[in-house]
Amino acid sequence: MTHIESSPLTRKLSTFVALSDVDLETLARFHRRRRTFLAGHEMMHEGQSNASVYILAEGWACSYKMLPDGGRQVINFQIPGDFLGLRSILFRTSDLSLEALTDIEASEVFAPDILGAFAEAPRLATAVLWASSRDEAMMVEHLVNLGRRSAVERMAHLLMELGARLNHVGIGDRTGFSCPLTQYHLADALGLSAIHVNRVLRQLREDGLVTFRQGKVTFNNFEGLQALAGFDTGYMDHAGPLLR
Amino acid sequence: MTHIESSPLTRKLSTFVALSDVDLETLARFHRRRRTFLAGHEMMHEGQSNASVYILAEGWACSYKMLPDGGRQVINFQIPGDFLGLRSILFRTSDLSLEALTDIEASEVFAPDILGAFAEAPRLATAVLWASSRDEAMMVEHLVNLGRRSAVERMAHLLMELGARLNHVGIGDRTGFSCPLTQYHLADALGLSAIHVNRVLRQLREDGLVTFRQGKVTFNNFEGLQALAGFDTGYMDHAGPLLR
Repeated sequence: MTHIESSPLTRKLSTFVALSDVDLETLARFHRRRRTFLAGHEMMHEGQSNASVYILAEGWACSYKMLPDGGRQVINFQIPGDFLGLRSILFRTSDLSLEALTDIEASEVFAPDILGAFAEAPRLATAVLWASSRDEAMMVEHLVNLGRRSAVERMAHLLMELGARLNHVGIGDRTGFSCPLTQYHLADALGLSAIHVNRVLRQLREDGLVTFRQGKVTFNNFEGLQALAGFDTGYMDHAGPLLR
Repeated sequence: MTHIESSPLTRKLSTFVALSDVDLETLARFHRRRRTFLAGHEMMHEGQSNASVYILAEGWACSYKMLPDGGRQVINFQIPGDFLGLRSILFRTSDLSLEALTDIEASEVFAPDILGAFAEAPRLATAVLWASSRDEAMMVEHLVNLGRRSAVERMAHLLMELGARLNHVGIGDRTGFSCPLTQYHLADALGLSAIHVNRVLRQLREDGLVTFRQGKVTFNNFEGLQALAGFDTGYMDHAGPLLR
C-alpha cells in the first residue's frame, strides 16, 4: 500500500478528499497497468475514439490542438498525478492531441474501471470532479492570459502556475523546479513567437524575478513574480481536505 | 415527475447517461429551492466563499474575470441547463464572477446536497463530471479562439457553439436562436473591441453566413459558417447516451 499512498495522483486527490481505505484500494486498481512511453510519442490524437485514460506517474506531457493553418495551440502541460485524456472516455472521441515531452511512466486505465469506481467509492467521484475542475480553472487562467495579459505577465503566470502544481505533488519548491519545456513549447502555449519568448525570458531574468536556464526554473524573487503575474492561488488552494 | 424530466439540466444529462428512477429523484431534489434574479444581478463574485451552486432554468448568465487594468475577460455564457458556480463548492472560493444577463430563474443547490447525491446515485456523478468536462472542452475551444483564430473565425465559432448548446436543450435550431448578448459581451468574450465586433458581424452578414439583429441570430448559411469556424461538433456530440 505504501507505493500507492505515495503515488502523485493519490497525493493530489488527498489534498481535496480524505481518502478512505475503500477509496485507496479502488485507486490502487487504477495503477495495475503500468506503461512507458518515449519522449515525442503521440499518445492520443484529436478525433481518436476509444482512447485510454492515463495517469501520469513520471515525466511531462503536453495537450494541444492543431489549427488548419498548421499552427498549434498548446492547451496545457501535464505533470505527475495528472490524468491524460480523461475527457476521451466521457466524449466519444478525444478533443485534443497528447504528446510525451519526456520519457514518461503512466498507468493505463480503461473507461469502465473509472466509471465503475465511482459506484464503489463515491468520494472518489468527487475527487476526480475536483481534479477536473482544477484543470478547468487553469484553462480559465490561460484564457485570461491570452485575452488580456501582456507577454511578460503571461510567462510569469505560467511559470508560477507550473511551480505551484509541481510543489503540490512534491516536485519542486519555492526556489524553483526542473523544467523540460523548450521555448517552442512556451511559445505555442502563450501565443507568442519563439523569438518573443526568448526576449520575455531575458527581461524576467534581468529584472531579477525568474531565471529559466538549462532545464531549470529558478525563482529569484517569488513575491515579485507573483505580483507581476497577478497570480492568485485560489484555484490551487490546499489548506487541507475540504471533504473529510 | 413530468416537470423534472423536462428540466433543461435533466434533458442535458440524459443525452449522456440513461438516468434511472433513483437518479431522477435525486436530481428532483436539486430543484426544490427556486429563485429569481433580475438582469444585471451579480450572483457571485471572484473570491467569494461559501457561494451556492445554481442550476439555470430560464435566461442567460455570464461568467467573467476582472483584470487589474479594469478590463474584463468573459469566460463563458451560461444557458438553461447549465450549472453556475459548480467550482465554488469544490474550491474554497469562487474563481469567477457571475452576472445575470437577463432576468433568470434558477434552482439553488447547497454543496452537501450535490456531494451527497453522488453517494446515492453514482451515475449522476459521472453525468456531472461529463457536464463539467464539456465546459472544459468549450474552454479549450475559446483558448484556441483567442490564441490562433482570426476575429471573423472567433465570432463564427462562438455563434455556432451557442447554437449547438441551445439546440441541445431544446431552444433554437439550425435556423438560429434568440440571443440577448450585446456587442460589449461579444467583445469581452472574444478579446475584441466593440467596434471590431460590429465590423465582423457586418462582414459575416454581407457574406451571407449569419445575421445577428434585434436579439436574434439567424444562420443564413449553416454549412458555410461551420466551415469558416472550423467548428467540430465532437465535444458536443450526442448520438445517444454513452452510459446506459
